[in-house]
Amino acid sequence: MAVYTDISEDDLSGFLTQYDVGELTSYKGIAEGVENTNFLLQTTKGAYILTLYEKRVDQSDLPFFLGLMHHLAGNGLSCPLPIPRLDGALLGELSGRPAAVISFLTGVWLRKPDANHCREVGRALAAMHVAGDGFDLTRRNALSVSGWRPIWNNSVARADEVQPGLADEIGAELDHLEARWPKTLPSGVIHADLFPDNVFFLGDDLSGLIDFYFACNDFFAYDVSICLNAWCFEKDGAFNITKGMALLAGYESVRQLSDDEVAALPLLARGSAMRFFLTRLYDWLMTPAGALVVKKDPLEYLKKLQFHRSVASAAEYGLVRESLSP
Amino acid sequence: MAVYTDISEDDLSGFLTQYDVGELTSYKGIAEGVENTNFLLQTTKGAYILTLYEKRVDQSDLPFFLGLMHHLAGNGLSCPLPIPRLDGALLGELSGRPAAVISFLTGVWLRKPDANHCREVGRALAAMHVAGDGFDLTRRNALSVSGWRPIWNNSVARADEVQPGLADEIGAELDHLEARWPKTLPSGVIHADLFPDNVFFLGDDLSGLIDFYFACNDFFAYDVSICLNAWCFEKDGAFNITKGMALLAGYESVRQLSDDEVAALPLLARGSAMRFFLTRLYDWLMTPAGALVVKKDPLEYLKKLQFHRSVASAAEYGLVRESLSP
Repeated sequence: MAVYTDISEDDLSGFLTQYDVGELTSYKGIAEGVENTNFLLQTTKGAYILTLYEKRVDQSDLPFFLGLMHHLAGNGLSCPLPIPRLDGALLGELSGRPAAVISFLTGVWLRKPDANHCREVGRALAAMHVAGDGFDLTRRNALSVSGWRPIWNNSVARADEVQPGLADEIGAELDHLEARWPKTLPSGVIHADLFPDNVFFLGDDLSGLIDFYFACNDFFAYDVSICLNAWCFEKDGAFNITKGMALLAGYESVRQLSDDEVAALPLLARGSAMRFFLTRLYDWLMTPAGALVVKKDPLEYLKKLQFHRSVASAAEYGLVRESLSP
Repeated sequence: MAVYTDISEDDLSGFLTQYDVGELTSYKGIAEGVENTNFLLQTTKGAYILTLYEKRVDQSDLPFFLGLMHHLAGNGLSCPLPIPRLDGALLGELSGRPAAVISFLTGVWLRKPDANHCREVGRALAAMHVAGDGFDLTRRNALSVSGWRPIWNNSVARADEVQPGLADEIGAELDHLEARWPKTLPSGVIHADLFPDNVFFLGDDLSGLIDFYFACNDFFAYDVSICLNAWCFEKDGAFNITKGMALLAGYESVRQLSDDEVAALPLLARGSAMRFFLTRLYDWLMTPAGALVVKKDPLEYLKKLQFHRSVASAAEYGLVRESLSP
């Protein structure tokens, strides 16, 4: 939620001559994206997003992200499309930073999604998993199981400041996850961050997915488990099985989960809760007091993790299967 | 440069039914305005700005600000126009805050204005002074000479942390300004904050003025002196007389300055430099270390103040007058 880099109109107008996007009439920094600087451009041809990639993004990943959007859009997924420059390149440079012009996706993200929206999200997530097929670049998931221990090691000494006993609990949980994490499950390109602010709706219709800057290759079911965490808990911390049922049914209306995926879902959900717990805990401990950023409470994800620990099978998330019925 | 309040799409869509602005298709928080929260809305009818007024703005001032924009636009000044609700009111309420829908003004603000742009700004400032005539609400300038001592009293104890000797220098300067500040000069509604980020251009043509949230009743020439400070100094601190000449000539192409105004200009410019010095100093001292806001250097305005102290007459700003020539 920040604008890290300002740009001059001369630099921007010069930059835009490399694109077929018309004449600039307005640009405003927008409070979206925590890793990058985003401007909403208006030109004589319409609206565009200009993204400047800041230091937190590894530049060697940019061809993956931009190429993926291009690939997904080409396969019919509604997502922002990087506008090629006149020379065909998707990536340019502005104010000393890698920069891309992206098509403007209409829609709003839902602050209070309901079960029908969850069904649409499940459907769109599966559509993305299918649409990613054939994309020939790969990116490993640095925030999956092997990445958690290093983040934890940077926080463990101060973890009990946040909640007494946290160091012991998380240490044991990491041992458990590392020992039991699946080795093989159906895999491909996953979004890995499909929170409500990354899904746009027009009325009740899903209009598209945005922000592919955590996308990577990993288990499809891990992506499903992220969505269960991101969409199906209420503000009071309770899991909403109606939303879970809708999300999973929406997903399976496009792509059926295998028995192995279904069996792994509770463990994967513990893992994805751990992933967001750890990055939030790190940010919580590292953000200086008084800084004007919204610190997200890591304990929200500890509570989700604890819920998943209690889950015996995916039926408790609302997955409907003959074999899972009591 | 912040979004202080988020709003849900349901609340926003409900709010917009009170206006004739079409159906909402997108809204994004924008990094503009330090006092308020601003969203750029897209609807089936076009683009709008939605402003939520935060606590720093005195609600009793809102009828003045919104009415002024309406008055100025009605008199031909290009500025954002508050969209009336279906019931005729300019002000609504959203998320517990006063809120207004404002027309979208095309254009970009110039990070590196040149002398021709300064001429356009001078012309637009004078046009605003003329267009404000007949507006029947008034608002006193809380940041003019009588308001400076109270701000200073909150900073003086720590002023020498910023630069040794500052407390003595500013104290003496305030004594000087308070003793000599003009009692009567041509007055009316002034913008009082016409910095480059509040003036939009399309190419080299000025497309309009924005952000009237410091507007008040005061001396027109004080507003001119603010623009001299805001537009006519180079990054190295030097006054650019070519820009000053262009700004003043642009102003006088619409409204002639009286002899009294011309004679007062150096003192008024010391005063307006003092005004921005004091608010910046206060923010500088009060902003916690590590906070993710850009702290503006108060010493930039001390240097401008010192320059104005050396100015003997408005000719040194580039004002062309027979009687001022050597």
